[in-house]
Amino acid sequence: MLKDGERIDDLNLNGLKLIQREDMFKFGMDAVLLSNFVYTKRGDKIVDLGCGTGIIPILIAGKSRDTRIVGVEIQSEVANIAIRNVYLNNFEGRIDIINDDIRNVVDKLGIEKYDIVTSNPPYMPYKTGFDKNSESENISRYELNGGLDDFIKVAAKLLKFGGKFFLVHRVDRIVDIVYNLRICNLEPKKIRFIHPHFGEKPNLVLVEAKKGAKSGVVIMPPLYVYEENGEYTKELLSIYGKTSIEEE
Amino acid sequence: MLKDGERIDDLNLNGLKLIQREDMFKFGMDAVLLSNFVYTKRGDKIVDLGCGTGIIPILIAGKSRDTRIVGVEIQSEVANIAIRNVYLNNFEGRIDIINDDIRNVVDKLGIEKYDIVTSNPPYMPYKTGFDKNSESENISRYELNGGLDDFIKVAAKLLKFGGKFFLVHRVDRIVDIVYNLRICNLEPKKIRFIHPHFGEKPNLVLVEAKKGAKSGVVIMPPLYVYEENGEYTKELLSIYGKTSIEEE
Repeated sequence: MLKDGERIDDLNLNGLKLIQREDMFKFGMDAVLLSNFVYTKRGDKIVDLGCGTGIIPILIAGKSRDTRIVGVEIQSEVANIAIRNVYLNNFEGRIDIINDDIRNVVDKLGIEKYDIVTSNPPYMPYKTGFDKNSESENISRYELNGGLDDFIKVAAKLLKFGGKFFLVHRVDRIVDIVYNLRICNLEPKKIRFIHPHFGEKPNLVLVEAKKGAKSGVVIMPPLYVYEENGEYTKELLSIYGKTSIEEE
Repeated sequence: MLKDGERIDDLNLNGLKLIQREDMFKFGMDAVLLSNFVYTKRGDKIVDLGCGTGIIPILIAGKSRDTRIVGVEIQSEVANIAIRNVYLNNFEGRIDIINDDIRNVVDKLGIEKYDIVTSNPPYMPYKTGFDKNSESENISRYELNGGLDDFIKVAAKLLKFGGKFFLVHRVDRIVDIVYNLRICNLEPKKIRFIHPHFGEKPNLVLVEAKKGAKSGVVIMPPLYVYEENGEYTKELLSIYGKTSIEEE
């Protein structure tokens, strides 16, 4: 099951495991926080846009009942790992991995057929002069194959009326997020900022938007990652449960 | 100088004072927080949209040098108090009060002539069945004479390219605020949420937007109002300085 350069990480949640590669993008705290932020109903149909090695579909499948999840990943080698992660965790029949550009999947998956869409998209706008990541990591980190507006447009098409979109992103994009959500008829209903330290600025944001909803948003209490002594906060540890904490 | 039903409050800042009436809207913590959030350059030309009895123009004049401030207030009786507050604080020549609907002032003040616009607008959408406030209070609290979108449109017209709009509002309107700012080419650059208590949701938000700026916003650290023991936080008291704290 493992290829050269791959390793299996124990997610320490109901025995879930994840194959990853050292030289590619590895899931971070943001994916775990997003999976925790998502809530599902039994039988929900879910799409994760830009699923990487499958961390979000697997965490959501692990905490929900009878949900069906489609993960979409553009990189064939990464999608191949995600497919093996589905088997590794015995989620075949519940999680399908599609190896395609997210901008192509509406034709395959259909319009307004899904209850929930999730995404932990590339955070960085396209620019020349990348840092020294691998090409695969750059595809995971930079908006090379669809920007934030594309992810939001696709989510809006996939969702049923009343369906929900859950997103994690860098906090400096929150205006772009809110603006693009509204023009796509996905109304932001809950926003939670993630602050590394008490009394400091947030660096990440979790957003829940609902298709066709009226205006009116709740800004949730701040989520703090570290105590003043450098240890993780109680809330952060409770979100991780027994998952080992692996940061980007 | 005082009429029946009026009183003079000492703002305890450089000897500033304010005439208010018991049966009308009295300034709240939000006006003080907004005035503190605003920063000016020497000689800036400023407009405060919906100035009430003049609290924001007077606080800004008191902390800035050589600024010229126009306060716009629709209620003639309230504008009359604001005019007397200008004299009471010796700001004639620096603060002008215009008694008009904010939707009419662009014709009077001109397009793109101001460096800064501030506003603490009515917070509540228009609805039937008001609470039992006075008519004057309802005009101050409800969007009877222009909604959030009007305040933002007018600010956008008054401001020079690169000019700044400073706003305080209820937190559940933040999506409306951000969306309307962007469509008016006022890009949100700083957002600060005001939380009554540690670890709880915010109820107010301060926004700084810049005309013609690029996307990219800073979410500032939370501003907490109360300590766990019910006393004001150090930051809140430092913002008030020696101002007595009068809440709505």
